[in-house]
Amino acid sequence: MNADPHLSALIDLALAEDLGSGDVTTEALWPPGARGNARLVAREPLVVAGLDVAALVFARLDAACRLQRAVQDGARVQKGAVLARLRGPLRAMLEGERTALNFLRHLSGIASCTRRFVDALDGTGCVLLDTRKTTPGLRVLEKAAVRAGGGHNHRMGLFDGVLLKDNHITAAGSIAKAVRRVRTRIPPTLRVEVECATLAQVRAALRAKVDIIMLDNMSPDKMARAVEVIGGKARTEASGRLDLDTVRRAAQAGVDSVSVGALTHSAPSVDIAMDLDPA
Amino acid sequence: MNADPHLSALIDLALAEDLGSGDVTTEALWPPGARGNARLVAREPLVVAGLDVAALVFARLDAACRLQRAVQDGARVQKGAVLARLRGPLRAMLEGERTALNFLRHLSGIASCTRRFVDALDGTGCVLLDTRKTTPGLRVLEKAAVRAGGGHNHRMGLFDGVLLKDNHITAAGSIAKAVRRVRTRIPPTLRVEVECATLAQVRAALRAKVDIIMLDNMSPDKMARAVEVIGGKARTEASGRLDLDTVRRAAQAGVDSVSVGALTHSAPSVDIAMDLDPA
Amino acid sequence: MNADPHLSALIDLALAEDLGSGDVTTEALWPPGARGNARLVAREPLVVAGLDVAALVFARLDAACRLQRAVQDGARVQKGAVLARLRGPLRAMLEGERTALNFLRHLSGIASCTRRFVDALDGTGCVLLDTRKTTPGLRVLEKAAVRAGGGHNHRMGLFDGVLLKDNHITAAGSIAKAVRRVRTRIPPTLRVEVECATLAQVRAALRAKVDIIMLDNMSPDKMARAVEVIGGKARTEASGRLDLDTVRRAAQAGVDSVSVGALTHSAPSVDIAMDLDPA
Amino acid sequence: MNADPHLSALIDLALAEDLGSGDVTTEALWPPGARGNARLVAREPLVVAGLDVAALVFARLDAACRLQRAVQDGARVQKGAVLARLRGPLRAMLEGERTALNFLRHLSGIASCTRRFVDALDGTGCVLLDTRKTTPGLRVLEKAAVRAGGGHNHRMGLFDGVLLKDNHITAAGSIAKAVRRVRTRIPPTLRVEVECATLAQVRAALRAKVDIIMLDNMSPDKMARAVEVIGGKARTEASGRLDLDTVRRAAQAGVDSVSVGALTHSAPSVDIAMDLDPA
Amino acid sequence: MNADPHLSALIDLALAEDLGSGDVTTEALWPPGARGNARLVAREPLVVAGLDVAALVFARLDAACRLQRAVQDGARVQKGAVLARLRGPLRAMLEGERTALNFLRHLSGIASCTRRFVDALDGTGCVLLDTRKTTPGLRVLEKAAVRAGGGHNHRMGLFDGVLLKDNHITAAGSIAKAVRRVRTRIPPTLRVEVECATLAQVRAALRAKVDIIMLDNMSPDKMARAVEVIGGKARTEASGRLDLDTVRRAAQAGVDSVSVGALTHSAPSVDIAMDLDPA
Amino acid sequence: MNADPHLSALIDLALAEDLGSGDVTTEALWPPGARGNARLVAREPLVVAGLDVAALVFARLDAACRLQRAVQDGARVQKGAVLARLRGPLRAMLEGERTALNFLRHLSGIASCTRRFVDALDGTGCVLLDTRKTTPGLRVLEKAAVRAGGGHNHRMGLFDGVLLKDNHITAAGSIAKAVRRVRTRIPPTLRVEVECATLAQVRAALRAKVDIIMLDNMSPDKMARAVEVIGGKARTEASGRLDLDTVRRAAQAGVDSVSVGALTHSAPSVDIAMDLDPA
Repeated sequence: MNADPHLSALIDLALAEDLGSGDVTTEALWPPGARGNARLVAREPLVVAGLDVAALVFARLDAACRLQRAVQDGARVQKGAVLARLRGPLRAMLEGERTALNFLRHLSGIASCTRRFVDALDGTGCVLLDTRKTTPGLRVLEKAAVRAGGGHNHRMGLFDGVLLKDNHITAAGSIAKAVRRVRTRIPPTLRVEVECATLAQVRAALRAKVDIIMLDNMSPDKMARAVEVIGGKARTEASGRLDLDTVRRAAQAGVDSVSVGALTHSAPSVDIAMDLDPA
Repeated sequence: MNADPHLSALIDLALAEDLGSGDVTTEALWPPGARGNARLVAREPLVVAGLDVAALVFARLDAACRLQRAVQDGARVQKGAVLARLRGPLRAMLEGERTALNFLRHLSGIASCTRRFVDALDGTGCVLLDTRKTTPGLRVLEKAAVRAGGGHNHRMGLFDGVLLKDNHITAAGSIAKAVRRVRTRIPPTLRVEVECATLAQVRAALRAKVDIIMLDNMSPDKMARAVEVIGGKARTEASGRLDLDTVRRAAQAGVDSVSVGALTHSAPSVDIAMDLDPA
Repeated sequence: MNADPHLSALIDLALAEDLGSGDVTTEALWPPGARGNARLVAREPLVVAGLDVAALVFARLDAACRLQRAVQDGARVQKGAVLARLRGPLRAMLEGERTALNFLRHLSGIASCTRRFVDALDGTGCVLLDTRKTTPGLRVLEKAAVRAGGGHNHRMGLFDGVLLKDNHITAAGSIAKAVRRVRTRIPPTLRVEVECATLAQVRAALRAKVDIIMLDNMSPDKMARAVEVIGGKARTEASGRLDLDTVRRAAQAGVDSVSVGALTHSAPSVDIAMDLDPA
Repeated sequence: MNADPHLSALIDLALAEDLGSGDVTTEALWPPGARGNARLVAREPLVVAGLDVAALVFARLDAACRLQRAVQDGARVQKGAVLARLRGPLRAMLEGERTALNFLRHLSGIASCTRRFVDALDGTGCVLLDTRKTTPGLRVLEKAAVRAGGGHNHRMGLFDGVLLKDNHITAAGSIAKAVRRVRTRIPPTLRVEVECATLAQVRAALRAKVDIIMLDNMSPDKMARAVEVIGGKARTEASGRLDLDTVRRAAQAGVDSVSVGALTHSAPSVDIAMDLDPA
Repeated sequence: MNADPHLSALIDLALAEDLGSGDVTTEALWPPGARGNARLVAREPLVVAGLDVAALVFARLDAACRLQRAVQDGARVQKGAVLARLRGPLRAMLEGERTALNFLRHLSGIASCTRRFVDALDGTGCVLLDTRKTTPGLRVLEKAAVRAGGGHNHRMGLFDGVLLKDNHITAAGSIAKAVRRVRTRIPPTLRVEVECATLAQVRAALRAKVDIIMLDNMSPDKMARAVEVIGGKARTEASGRLDLDTVRRAAQAGVDSVSVGALTHSAPSVDIAMDLDPA
Repeated sequence: MNADPHLSALIDLALAEDLGSGDVTTEALWPPGARGNARLVAREPLVVAGLDVAALVFARLDAACRLQRAVQDGARVQKGAVLARLRGPLRAMLEGERTALNFLRHLSGIASCTRRFVDALDGTGCVLLDTRKTTPGLRVLEKAAVRAGGGHNHRMGLFDGVLLKDNHITAAGSIAKAVRRVRTRIPPTLRVEVECATLAQVRAALRAKVDIIMLDNMSPDKMARAVEVIGGKARTEASGRLDLDTVRRAAQAGVDSVSVGALTHSAPSVDIAMDLDPA
């Protein structure tokens, strides 16, 4: 597997906060050489995400730990489904259990939540996007979980896209000036998106030839009119605390995409456990 | 303020994933020397947590950023309340905005959720505990948010407490053997807790003179009988997917404490925004 | 100033390799409390870049070091010009001298080289771009030096732009397939560029509606025909070991931009020294 | 292979700046399990250096990458020569390509430049030395590249040698005083060198019994007289912006060694590419 | 083996301070591919500790190094005993020799010293505890060495136990107030210990229902009276610069445990060498 | 003050192992804003070393901590002497106390031990050297403590000096061959030392024109003869488990220097405490 330094650092932080100076319980109860097997099991219906991270957690503690997936990230599974089998040194397995499960449960929670939104958009042709409202330190993992749930990623951060908001436009003086200034600085590979709350702003954005227009907190009717005004001259994205109901109505207003922060900031954890095989 | 290396590392990871090679938008629109003021504002009623972390995020980007609290962690505030004022270099303020808010919204979400559980326990004398089911890398912050919400922390990790579960007891052969072995290894300052699902296990735990007995997934009636059997010879903790209803019934069964994983693994984010003052 | 962790880590590596277990000479000759003043002086005509980094190097050794710029990054200066004045603890100034100069000389070398290319393009309206052929670990600094020299940055890395080359197209089966597949994965804020060596490829790229077409290693004539074929339906970039002569001819062929790897991989260092003021 | 933490940190910085949040292109076009073969090929005549680093770059991304050298560092090769073969997971190969090449091209550029200077000194018995004018963070690699090109390393940093310059001598009051003071602080294993621009300084250095005398910026005639004055009582090193012509004349003046900063600060990159084998 | 990040970081620091920019002697005398065998040999009678760390030191330099233990940590061995055999690349073996031995000699020194104290307590039933007076950065290793010598660990740090001393009690106002306040903050799994120098303090501690009472710097007689006063209502620990004589008298006064800082802060190193097998 | 990254990393490790997830006791008893004063006091006669490190420990926890030295490193003080005064936030002072003291006591122990050896050499003109037998991770600090005690540093590591021992000579074939080979690799600023146990080896070393000869484990008589044979043609160093008695006899045999590993590997800690001023 291919572990980047950012992820390794996060895993180290996570293990450090749980293991600290050592797992005295495990050290007391199992000799260093003891080996075992375990299964990661879904305790409720869910969409899987994060198995790679779980594998890295155990491997970080002991390179002899082997996690074998029973399903792929993105699979919908029922209660009781085995997600993966783990074998290796028992000490490392028990020391990594909580951290690996905390990752898996959180990320599968995001994938499961995403899947519900994707299903709500079924047939509309509208793309579900995530946002930058992610848990600090876990963004890359959470955005992968969104993909596992069938969603699509918006920009990763401030470096791979431009989204001009009120503050930016006020500072520059107008949408046109903000767009012009930012284009002198960014690489030719980046598009410019502008957040618009009114039709007047939408028109100004079109005059500035922006690439993407975000329709922020508009009613479905207003959104439909905005889409009409835009007339394909820019891509469109609906935004603003959308839930499973409102997201579909936004899609039906004709936008290309909807973005939902709750996918990553408020998805509840799902229940996954590690069952040790009897010795 | 007093920033430990773990927290600094987490903040660096969080900033790195958002800023990457740089915030091209901000660099294009504000000169290096521009300064400004902003307010962190609650967009819904909530209990505050994480203002220290928000301050560290901005200070990491530019030591000249100053965050002045309007309220303390743990305060209940209404929609529209100003939580803190921020002044300093505008570039750092805008580059840190999303990361600081992501911390604040997540941690205040936990504090707000905790407060609801604490209120549900009002008058019972029963203590609300958190668990190790936290977001990887954020445990110390999340446990501080639980305290801000009026909860009490259980052990931080595997190093400051012993909790013997099925796997441990099976490996040792019996509760008595597990307790004995673990006591030869741990420092004299640590107590031993045992997870019990039946009254037979509770009795075995008492014979082994454990310090704390966790009553796991018991009905209120069974829990009440367990409390009676224990008779003050060990502390008691109720556990097992408790919600706002069931947590009060558990408390009324007479346990010393209840532990709720959802405080840290499933609390939804609350809405907090950063409003820039007009120049 | 605003130091990101990547840059701090690089500065630490650079100081570690020069200072190792300590600068025994400086420690022998100056007492800990000695203070002094120095000037950073151009020993040849050059365009300045890297003064911020030099300041960070000295500040890393001792926060009491103060570097005051006499000129801004991007300034053209003559031999003998003072670039900045430094004052602070003498030990830190002498321990940081070589590392700070190595940064300054290298980055000003890049800015000076870039300026020569920008001058060669004068009046053509064609933008000078850099590439990813940078010195490992120094990319952000080198790209800032390119901007100081009047150039424009291409994408920072593999994360903020797509450039499809032979390997990608072969793997996908065709330009059209490669473009389609990559668009399902990237955020809506990223554009897609394709490297084309023939007019047939240019036409295929246009049919795939790519955003940018790189004309790779084409003769000026062929390039002019490609520009004509493209007819404004995609942006254009000329590439391929361009020097001060050939870069102008490429521009005159009508491309929007030219990219030159040598700016960052082969610019010779310029001569800058640190002169200590007499005590 | 034997990777020290400094080099690992540099490689991580280099990969981070290129990969950032991920290579979206590669992820879109190749499945995780795809494997392949490639060759690292010289596109011009050159002297090889840095193959070890290239191997570490790929191994850092995926331990399953195997780089097999076709030649050793220090080999002179012609245009078209295969330097090494690489096989392993395609994703890691493509993600590491640019970083590995940037190292290889830069270091082989230094080795090739060094070789030209060594050839210019052929038959003189004079040793070619490098300096501390290296690219920040890359010193150990660049000094290894100098050795690959047939040069000899001067001190690595401020910790493994003493070189007294004007500033030091002024601070101490005289060459004699500077030498005396520094000898009370340094380990017995370090020699002391003094930079001399005049014959008077050479004589003072001899009286102070310094171990090495650097003849700085002297004409060949003056250098020859200095060598005569020294008469073997100290080693000698010629220094001062020497090029391929002047370096030979310095050697013929009888010095033991010449040091050339340009080897590491101004050697142009050489052209090396990674060719993917057809699937 | 299972290497935590803290230990890896310490090993990296230790190797860096010895190897710095490289072991020029070894590089000059052995080719990269040379392999060999060596033995780690006791040069005096001792109790072994630290073999795991020694193995990690060599493995850090080259994963091909294999250290095979001849004895386990905790073994008492005579002069001349082989502790482990090492084989692998000669360069890594020689580069790691001093660092590995420095660890082994220091930790075995602690184990040997601990064993002398444990023997002095033989038959008393009193437990020998270590303290937090350890060498900065090496605590976990030193506490493992204490266990190897037959001792028992006291708390690891400030996070896994409470020990109230003069400063704490003065700040809170009384033992009772300090105990009460600290109990509102700590997890239920932690015990509270109070340092007492007088019988009055012992009685106050008992009234506050503390879990452990430390008898600090008391004479054997006073200690015996304190034990009598306590009467089993709290655990007891004797403390205060105990040596091999006084430790036994403290034990005979009836305390449950004695703590000895000298185990970790003043144990002399023991002599262990690495003998290379003839080629 | 001037904190290098190595030292910062060590301090972070030391604080992490003591503070872990937090000092629950201090947090319970002092509010965040509480400030105080304290004195670092010698509890026995000693030579001071490490005050800078103690200051850095407190400053790492809170930049508002100020440590003001009452004496300089190297001072001999009596029991009861105040070494420094500390003021600042009480939480940071108490959280840093143990770590700061552990550094100070260990380093002052080394300085005190060194001073006893220096005194034993009084009047002989022989220099006292330390060795590489230091505590892993603490070498730079321990070598500074040796200087504080009046000793002189031998090489810092394998990078700033060559010391050829049996293994090296056997590998090369002879002293002459080893010296020749190593000289082709090392910078001109490094001297070569050879370890000799017999007069025959001493003569071979002289023929190879080594710079320094170590007389290893020789009796005073043999050492005197060796010094005579060497006759000033190389520097001399006596080595081999020297104690306060034997070190003076070695010096009287006429060697230039003696090296003593026990200075850094076996010096007992000295007693230093932190006394909090009454509020």
